[in-house]
Amino acid sequence: MGQKPINWFWDYVTPNLIHQITVEAMPFIGKSRYQAVQVIDTPSFGRCLVLDGKIQCSESDEFIYHEALVHPAMVTHPNPETVFIAGGGEGATLREVLVHKTVKKAVMVDIDRKVPEICRKYLPSLSDGAFEDSRVELIYMDAMKYLAETKEKFDVIILDLTEPLEEGPAYQLFTKEFYQGLNKKLKKGGIMALQAGATSMLVSPTFLVVVNTLSKVFPVVAPCHAQVPSFGGPWGFAVVSQTLDPRELTPEEIDRRLAKRLSRPLRFYDGIAYRGMFSLPKYFRKQIVQEKRVITKDKPFFTY
Amino acid sequence: MGQKPINWFWDYVTPNLIHQITVEAMPFIGKSRYQAVQVIDTPSFGRCLVLDGKIQCSESDEFIYHEALVHPAMVTHPNPETVFIAGGGEGATLREVLVHKTVKKAVMVDIDRKVPEICRKYLPSLSDGAFEDSRVELIYMDAMKYLAETKEKFDVIILDLTEPLEEGPAYQLFTKEFYQGLNKKLKKGGIMALQAGATSMLVSPTFLVVVNTLSKVFPVVAPCHAQVPSFGGPWGFAVVSQTLDPRELTPEEIDRRLAKRLSRPLRFYDGIAYRGMFSLPKYFRKQIVQEKRVITKDKPFFTY
Amino acid sequence: MGQKPINWFWDYVTPNLIHQITVEAMPFIGKSRYQAVQVIDTPSFGRCLVLDGKIQCSESDEFIYHEALVHPAMVTHPNPETVFIAGGGEGATLREVLVHKTVKKAVMVDIDRKVPEICRKYLPSLSDGAFEDSRVELIYMDAMKYLAETKEKFDVIILDLTEPLEEGPAYQLFTKEFYQGLNKKLKKGGIMALQAGATSMLVSPTFLVVVNTLSKVFPVVAPCHAQVPSFGGPWGFAVVSQTLDPRELTPEEIDRRLAKRLSRPLRFYDGIAYRGMFSLPKYFRKQIVQEKRVITKDKPFFTY
Amino acid sequence: MGQKPINWFWDYVTPNLIHQITVEAMPFIGKSRYQAVQVIDTPSFGRCLVLDGKIQCSESDEFIYHEALVHPAMVTHPNPETVFIAGGGEGATLREVLVHKTVKKAVMVDIDRKVPEICRKYLPSLSDGAFEDSRVELIYMDAMKYLAETKEKFDVIILDLTEPLEEGPAYQLFTKEFYQGLNKKLKKGGIMALQAGATSMLVSPTFLVVVNTLSKVFPVVAPCHAQVPSFGGPWGFAVVSQTLDPRELTPEEIDRRLAKRLSRPLRFYDGIAYRGMFSLPKYFRKQIVQEKRVITKDKPFFTY
Repeated sequence: MGQKPINWFWDYVTPNLIHQITVEAMPFIGKSRYQAVQVIDTPSFGRCLVLDGKIQCSESDEFIYHEALVHPAMVTHPNPETVFIAGGGEGATLREVLVHKTVKKAVMVDIDRKVPEICRKYLPSLSDGAFEDSRVELIYMDAMKYLAETKEKFDVIILDLTEPLEEGPAYQLFTKEFYQGLNKKLKKGGIMALQAGATSMLVSPTFLVVVNTLSKVFPVVAPCHAQVPSFGGPWGFAVVSQTLDPRELTPEEIDRRLAKRLSRPLRFYDGIAYRGMFSLPKYFRKQIVQEKRVITKDKPFFTY
Repeated sequence: MGQKPINWFWDYVTPNLIHQITVEAMPFIGKSRYQAVQVIDTPSFGRCLVLDGKIQCSESDEFIYHEALVHPAMVTHPNPETVFIAGGGEGATLREVLVHKTVKKAVMVDIDRKVPEICRKYLPSLSDGAFEDSRVELIYMDAMKYLAETKEKFDVIILDLTEPLEEGPAYQLFTKEFYQGLNKKLKKGGIMALQAGATSMLVSPTFLVVVNTLSKVFPVVAPCHAQVPSFGGPWGFAVVSQTLDPRELTPEEIDRRLAKRLSRPLRFYDGIAYRGMFSLPKYFRKQIVQEKRVITKDKPFFTY
Repeated sequence: MGQKPINWFWDYVTPNLIHQITVEAMPFIGKSRYQAVQVIDTPSFGRCLVLDGKIQCSESDEFIYHEALVHPAMVTHPNPETVFIAGGGEGATLREVLVHKTVKKAVMVDIDRKVPEICRKYLPSLSDGAFEDSRVELIYMDAMKYLAETKEKFDVIILDLTEPLEEGPAYQLFTKEFYQGLNKKLKKGGIMALQAGATSMLVSPTFLVVVNTLSKVFPVVAPCHAQVPSFGGPWGFAVVSQTLDPRELTPEEIDRRLAKRLSRPLRFYDGIAYRGMFSLPKYFRKQIVQEKRVITKDKPFFTY
Repeated sequence: MGQKPINWFWDYVTPNLIHQITVEAMPFIGKSRYQAVQVIDTPSFGRCLVLDGKIQCSESDEFIYHEALVHPAMVTHPNPETVFIAGGGEGATLREVLVHKTVKKAVMVDIDRKVPEICRKYLPSLSDGAFEDSRVELIYMDAMKYLAETKEKFDVIILDLTEPLEEGPAYQLFTKEFYQGLNKKLKKGGIMALQAGATSMLVSPTFLVVVNTLSKVFPVVAPCHAQVPSFGGPWGFAVVSQTLDPRELTPEEIDRRLAKRLSRPLRFYDGIAYRGMFSLPKYFRKQIVQEKRVITKDKPFFTY
């Protein structure tokens, strides 16, 4: 009896599919102004950050998610000096951006001041000192509001937002109008990357709809995905821009740029991983082409 | 999503029946030298103490369990002055014993020093000052060893032991040999009460086997039960002695004795509740009569 | 792996408490016009009938529920010749009524024609030939409508209705108005019994509110309960009338009447079980007295 | 209540990670001589075949698994005329093999006669007429025994075996000795493909150990993976041979060969999907290189 798991966390993928994960301890459970927050220790994935009931990242595989989100865009840009991050409160996206020696300034705007606090206390490896880096400007406010007010433009923009849950803070940041605003904040030749939800099409169409919405604003939309075990399946990203296409680089060029620009080696991403990320199955490419829905302010879209 | 329960505790009733209970917080999780210990907050039952995966008591209904364990024996005895408690580390059994103004001395022996510590910190209402009562002698050691060494005899003995789990500390205290030893520690006219497991016969035969084992040592064995919601069903007790039979008192006599002897009113127990506890359904009385198994040192018995 | 349970049924007690039960087979799953119906085989309780997600009865312990529902009223009546049953489609309530040799006519009205069909095929022991008994009149229609139209009066009325779920067919049959109507269908000296939900007060106040509602119509309201393992806790009933009080009989008189009137022995109910059923704990009797809510047509009440 | 899911299937990924999936119906549940078999209908994945507690394939995504298993090897071979399949009782692997117009003979050997029977009745789209194809020779016996006795050699061998569970029938077919025997059954220039377990390294090392074991027998070992949603994560395969390396073909050549050789179009596999399957992340390639365990008859390996 003592050895049977008795404490469980449910990650609802859909109302009909739950990932049920043994919990060994629950160091934090509470609420910020914007979302429910908990930190759980699990034998499957180590310590996990959970926001509004969804695992946001786990010690064991957050490197996959954050490298897959950050590096495809950063490497595609010929010389990324200024970077804007929306969301990403736990600091790991910032951490990956700062590995690029070309970066001179990284502005990160997150609405929720409490999540970084909790992460610094319970999951310090996520930011790993990034918040102390002198290149960083950290701002706690609504990213939409910040962008409306700032005059600044950036080489690279990274959106690391929680999924568009009906109750969550992020759903307005998944609209055509927001993407149009972001487009204006990119310098000439700039590039943007974002996470866009699960790519298991049996689970949710979020990814398809986000990718189609992006295609109404950006001529180049390169969807890709990576397997993040603690998310219970492959996770989707998109790299978008007016001109730069990550798919035009060879794996060898990727490896050359990484070798030259990074201040430490990566664990997930390199030329071959890049090729895996951007080579989607036939049925999935077909679904992307067939998707016609566009998310707008008036027609928001919610993930379960 | 934010409102759906996502943290759950499983109370295994059997391998095929699990009570799945929402957890709001987990203030403590750890191990003592003898057992796994956790404290959980639940919307269903308030704060609960869990030992080796089983809910031992909950804030919301521990009064039922502890009153049902203690008072039938105490009230049946004409003048209980000295009481011995084995187990009951959380202090609530002691608390109920001390309500009887006749009590001059209560000796409590528990093997696990850590459980009372945790309970005093996280569940102080359980002992409610009982450990500070000057009538109390508190000893942390193996109850079996203590009884083998002591010369003392008692008016009332209460066994508040965890179930005889294969991995738990208590299974040796559910044997005929142990009951024989206890019998010698009762003063003339003394009486003993113990918890003896679930009485839902569909779930486990523990109660039947314990009651039959007791009947090999004590001429009077009065089985009874009470509904403890957080245990997921009715819970069984037995009151045993050489001569005193609780079933010979009228409800009116019970109420008279309670009114005279107690220093505060009870919530669960009185004359009518007494009648409910000792009036078992026909099929259940038949099962008790038919049970032939006896637990001995050489033939221990384990609950799932 | 092959031996680990992998198929489970969830009986939601509340949104925060689920009884999770291993399923070995699912011989039937479907819908009638009024409710979702399934038949499941479980190692814990044998074959079970499930209506709208709730276990209605299990092969292993339906005898407890049905004896506890039927016999207290039947035995209290000095000579029950005519009986009306509302609900009870599976036929087991009827089966228990017919055991009384005094019965000359039993009228059973259930709204759902499909449930008896399914039970006759998959759970034939429930009705055990009762539908073929020449004393029985079986009618499939709304019991409320039937009673409004009939001129007949009865010695005993038994309400064996599913709980007042918001989505279920029965909630209108738990109102003061319906009870007033029933009162007029009782012959002089008549008596009525009904199931009234779980009596674990931590779980639901349904029982308290139903009992208080009954007390607005009937001078005698005798609440009682019995442990039904497959329902996950004690289950409440009430025996009500203008004059007859079941609590005035002695256990010995109960046993005398049963011996004289029944065509076969019972398994759960006898004089001692009767005393257990009607002797409620102190806190519970207090809750019953304190309850002030009354269910009316305009103010219906729903169980979770 | 009626709409809340109440019937669930548990797919144990590890003892600490369960995929909990709503079940709508359970058309079949039973045992063959070799394994527990059930067919379940799920809103998440449609109808699923479950062997020994593991989802083997679902209507909604079996095309991914079976195309990923069969076509990489078939397309790499310049002219696959004779094919041997071990396992694959449900017929879908055979179905994919037969799509290749080059195939003149396909021998399929499965130990369990009952699984194909059940699949033909409940999941006919899996074989889709393959068992009736005149090119097919179907044999029910131990594949190991068959191969020991036959003199025949094949252009392509496909192993579609259940995972090496301790209780399952297949674990002996995951040994170096078995792979050595298979090597002798390949014609000159022949090629073999097999499924080799989950590639989420947080979940199980099976894939790594199988791939390393293969490398002791075959000079060319090309590991690859594909996302199969109903398996709860990416699934691993290996294509092995003495000389032919699937990684030497270009996506364009893959597409050319598919266009020329197939009798109907595929849904998952094409040149781009091929590139995705064989381009593994950096950390995963490193794990493959570092793995040193070899499975032998004397040192079998079991998946949870």
